[in-house]
Amino acid sequence: MIGRKLTEQLLRDGRLSGREISKMTLQDVVAPAKPANAGFPVETLAGDFALPGVAEKLVANRPEMIFHLAAIVSGEAELDFDKGYRINLDGTRMLFDAIRLAGGGYKPRVVFTSSIAVFGAPFPDAIGDEFFTTPLLSYGTQKAIGELLLADYSRRGFMDGVGIRLPTICIRPGLPNKAASGFFSGILREPLSGKEAVLPVSEDVRHWHASPRSAVGFLIHAATMDTAKAGARRNLTMPGISATVGEQIAALKRVAGEKVAARIKREPDHFIMGIVAGWPRNFDPKRALALGFTTAEKTFDDIIRIHIDDELGGQFVN
Amino acid sequence: MIGRKLTEQLLRDGRLSGREISKMTLQDVVAPAKPANAGFPVETLAGDFALPGVAEKLVANRPEMIFHLAAIVSGEAELDFDKGYRINLDGTRMLFDAIRLAGGGYKPRVVFTSSIAVFGAPFPDAIGDEFFTTPLLSYGTQKAIGELLLADYSRRGFMDGVGIRLPTICIRPGLPNKAASGFFSGILREPLSGKEAVLPVSEDVRHWHASPRSAVGFLIHAATMDTAKAGARRNLTMPGISATVGEQIAALKRVAGEKVAARIKREPDHFIMGIVAGWPRNFDPKRALALGFTTAEKTFDDIIRIHIDDELGGQFVN
Repeated sequence: MIGRKLTEQLLRDGRLSGREISKMTLQDVVAPAKPANAGFPVETLAGDFALPGVAEKLVANRPEMIFHLAAIVSGEAELDFDKGYRINLDGTRMLFDAIRLAGGGYKPRVVFTSSIAVFGAPFPDAIGDEFFTTPLLSYGTQKAIGELLLADYSRRGFMDGVGIRLPTICIRPGLPNKAASGFFSGILREPLSGKEAVLPVSEDVRHWHASPRSAVGFLIHAATMDTAKAGARRNLTMPGISATVGEQIAALKRVAGEKVAARIKREPDHFIMGIVAGWPRNFDPKRALALGFTTAEKTFDDIIRIHIDDELGGQFVN
Repeated sequence: MIGRKLTEQLLRDGRLSGREISKMTLQDVVAPAKPANAGFPVETLAGDFALPGVAEKLVANRPEMIFHLAAIVSGEAELDFDKGYRINLDGTRMLFDAIRLAGGGYKPRVVFTSSIAVFGAPFPDAIGDEFFTTPLLSYGTQKAIGELLLADYSRRGFMDGVGIRLPTICIRPGLPNKAASGFFSGILREPLSGKEAVLPVSEDVRHWHASPRSAVGFLIHAATMDTAKAGARRNLTMPGISATVGEQIAALKRVAGEKVAARIKREPDHFIMGIVAGWPRNFDPKRALALGFTTAEKTFDDIIRIHIDDELGGQFVN
């Protein structure tokens, strides 16, 4: 989803880092849609990037910029141990190794989407930039390992990596996925489209959110920033908005009314509750702010308005 | 070296966790010496534990306790990228996977020796238990990844792991190895044996040390402690002594005299200086202390006396 939105933005801009984009390759496990009206050649590839030889093909043309967003999401990586490690750890390492072994001084910028799931409870009130990574999910473990590899491969000069720990993206458009965090978007997205949504946790659950528009902004800034300023510490917690589920629902009521918010059904789910209990609630992302990362929203109400504007053509179902 | 000393201790004790040791298997890349007068059967195996199938054989007899100390040391892992990742990352993961896949409820205690090289400068005055891991060496990266795997495999119930971040072991007996930290021991060990030693860094370099006797104590405590008290955070910084090279030399003078200390030759080495500049200097290891880990020494003078007692039969070369 973020990949699609990033692609749309790059197609609109036609430029990155002040230079024209000359070519784009889109790779996913299922064939990505071929964009219409692209101002430059776009190649689409379908396949498993964690199979031997696939990453080598992806870097054979030496792209100057690589966005690595591929991942098995948290709930699925928890349920399927082997699949999560194969894609999230081995796949990431195979990509980094393909870059390392390409030779001839090849050193692309690599933007890796990590996650706040690298952190595990108990937490301070706001997690600072030097707080340790003790994930309580295999997904978070795999992302934390990807961060370590990215930093080491960058330190050794094989690539110029930036890891960005995305907040939970809210409101995620489209159909529900297998992410344990899916309900944070579902309880807003579905009611705004006239559908019921299930809330599996209590309203006092606090979490860290950013809009898809912010996420695309983070990715583009990570691709264009001066990495020298980040030094060896290339994995950054992105800014976001800390809100409880209750505050999310209150924002929904303010923006869309009581009738929309009444479409949320409370159905406690202990599997989801157990996962979410170990998740971060709030951050103090000083470094990312100092390095120029900014959010598109100031309040949770803005997050809902961005969804209505960007996904629903300005209209929700009352 | 630590493995040999641990073996000697276990042979002397004949017991662990209040139970008699019924069997011991020693594995190393070169055949470990078969201990004389063991009170229980000891099998010795030589080979590369990171080759396919080797780890499976090691766990086939379902040892209740596994000490994983195998590693390519820091200097060598920095010089040989592939070898370091193959042994320190892949080897560790293959061992953990062999345990995971053994089946039948097998869940051994696994003690993994990590390293303070998981931390990278800049540091606070004393590194606390919640400080983040930003290694500045491939070795530290590989150890940090091992820690993450250990925690996740333990959380999922495949094993009962404890990772211990050893201080730099001082005085390491025997011949110099390829560790970039080798000189911390060399400048004491060689002069105490009547030989010259090279000091490649300046005397104001501060570092974190523990004796081999302490290291064996840490390993045995990690093998026998109640891991429930550690919760999900199973990787612990071990206690140690913070000392500058100048303080080390002053201790050598106090314990062994000026003549011994005069055998240290200053020969600055910029490769070593560059590596050591990113290393930790001091820690505040509250959690390990609260969980019962203790050092055998109170001062750096004790560290030198322990070497003279344990390695030199109480005598040094004046």
